Amino acid sequence: VIGTGLIGGTLLSQLQARIEELKRHRGIDFRVRGIMNTRKMVLADRHLNLERWRDELSASSKTADLESFINHVNAAHLPHAVLIDATGSAELTGHYESWLSTGINIITPNKKSNAGPFAAYRSLREAARKHQRYFLYETNVGAGLPIIQTLRGLIDTGDEIIKIEGVLSGTLSYIFNSMDGRRGFSEVVREAHSLGLTEPDPREDLSGVDVARKLIILAREMGLEKEMEAVRVESMVAEDLRAATVDEYLNTLGKHDQKITALLSSARDNGQVLRYVGAIDSNGDMSARIRSYPLDHAFASLTGSDNIVSFQTARYNSQPMIVRGPGAGPEVTAGGVFADLLRLASFLGAPQ
Amino acid sequence: VIGTGLIGGTLLSQLQARIEELKRHRGIDFRVRGIMNTRKMVLADRHLNLERWRDELSASSKTADLESFINHVNAAHLPHAVLIDATGSAELTGHYESWLSTGINIITPNKKSNAGPFAAYRSLREAARKHQRYFLYETNVGAGLPIIQTLRGLIDTGDEIIKIEGVLSGTLSYIFNSMDGRRGFSEVVREAHSLGLTEPDPREDLSGVDVARKLIILAREMGLEKEMEAVRVESMVAEDLRAATVDEYLNTLGKHDQKITALLSSARDNGQVLRYVGAIDSNGDMSARIRSYPLDHAFASLTGSDNIVSFQTARYNSQPMIVRGPGAGPEVTAGGVFADLLRLASFLGAPQ
Repeated sequence: VIGTGLIGGTLLSQLQARIEELKRHRGIDFRVRGIMNTRKMVLADRHLNLERWRDELSASSKTADLESFINHVNAAHLPHAVLIDATGSAELTGHYESWLSTGINIITPNKKSNAGPFAAYRSLREAARKHQRYFLYETNVGAGLPIIQTLRGLIDTGDEIIKIEGVLSGTLSYIFNSMDGRRGFSEVVREAHSLGLTEPDPREDLSGVDVARKLIILAREMGLEKEMEAVRVESMVAEDLRAATVDEYLNTLGKHDQKITALLSSARDNGQVLRYVGAIDSNGDMSARIRSYPLDHAFASLTGSDNIVSFQTARYNSQPMIVRGPGAGPEVTAGGVFADLLRLASFLGAPQ
Repeated sequence: VIGTGLIGGTLLSQLQARIEELKRHRGIDFRVRGIMNTRKMVLADRHLNLERWRDELSASSKTADLESFINHVNAAHLPHAVLIDATGSAELTGHYESWLSTGINIITPNKKSNAGPFAAYRSLREAARKHQRYFLYETNVGAGLPIIQTLRGLIDTGDEIIKIEGVLSGTLSYIFNSMDGRRGFSEVVREAHSLGLTEPDPREDLSGVDVARKLIILAREMGLEKEMEAVRVESMVAEDLRAATVDEYLNTLGKHDQKITALLSSARDNGQVLRYVGAIDSNGDMSARIRSYPLDHAFASLTGSDNIVSFQTARYNSQPMIVRGPGAGPEVTAGGVFADLLRLASFLGAPQ
């Protein structure tokens, strides 16, 4: 496990709670043999004691060193190796292909690899296939919600995707679900920021780039060879505030409230609500933008910071398939990574 | 493939459309070596031509014979055997355990096995584990919707199920979604019957037994050792109409409309709608009954014959995970069976 922040830490707690049970009742013997963060690492010949990994890591005299970490994990005497990248780093993703080639399976919630240049995306998959290793990333979209597996199942069985549409950002979901006309956009953004529901710099959410990344990942699952630039993204960060500091941004954001207030009242006059929605159709047309929906639409009843994804396909045509629920947060994201780990075990022969 | 009705026939069409592509681009070599219905069967040494299986089956001189069919499918010179039971028969399910024991994997949308006596349920799983074979049945609940895999992922990774609740019958979904106060219960039931949305005898849906079966299947996934009798089922078939013929039933059903009309107007007075809902909580308390929901509840916005399932867990607590969409019909059910077949291929070593 690389990364001991909220997701990595939560995953290690979830593993600790289940590891004995999985060994005893399912015959699956997971051993965490290395944990690394940006500063240090701890390596175990057999397996780490997950009850006190934090103490061992902080007491460790080993400086973080990616190469020796990888060599340790990929031990010849063990049947399978898997590396869990629980960071948001774009640096680690550059190593994925070589790790797959040396025999390591990879699981990650990190979107940076799948949303990067298409040539690297394809090359990574070819390496995985050639070396018969797995690269699993269900949590890239919707965290623990069944999105990517579901989409892949539809495509592999010959269903035809007509449109995928959804509220793909928990942050933007919260902001739009909370704008009730009484509070301006800026007030809701500041509230979301103070509740820790946005990135430290909320412009990373409000720019729509995170939604565009998720669209690209879904598009590529659909077999479309698309780059990020192909997504038409409506940014909610006004041009004159893009260079400001975070504090300046939060303090002066209000001067652009009028634009969204006008959209909101126009939608309300038509009995509709606003949502920030990512959409992709069968031609590969992709957009991330503010849209309005009537009150009886599934997207209108969204609350909190829920994600929602609607799959309209040849089989699910007049009535789409819809998955909804929290699409971010350490517990559900770590749970989704853990589910990928169990899926990997199944692929490698673990009994049902 | 046993069963050439709507589901089996659609599955064979879906397979035909994908089989070459899966072989060429995924390295998965599926061969349909036998097809059987209640009267006849057709067996192929290599594989059947799926473009003309109907002609071959009707021209076949071989009378349906389960034992020779099974022996043919479980050929020693092929690496893996899988039997797809696309019937609704309770007779075939009695053979599952012995088929698993002789080395055949089983995939089925048929609920009869999983909803049968718990002793047989447990024994079947022990046979699968002992002989290292797979028994897959994602389509038992919600057809192609990701319900059972999702639940299993939550449980296996240590999430705690607080409540599973849902509209689990497409027929009852349609009936309750269509009752708008202008038309009585009996009128909507007759319409659903004439549209082919109910069983030939609509009492099979209206009795709630199908919903109870799905609850039992979910309960057992949760590790609860429950029998069908444990579900408190509210039947919508009045006692005096249980022995009637289908025609008599449909013609006289109206005399009990008043009861549901009263429930409906009382719900409407409170700004609520009625839904027929199956629910199971962490204590194993199970009920299938009419409940009322406020208009902003996810169940209230249901349309058509959609299913909806809400998973409330320790991780998905204040905001549950929700899956919604068509939960019946040949295309989506066959697609779900096909997805199980691909899952089986992955478990048996097919590349990602």
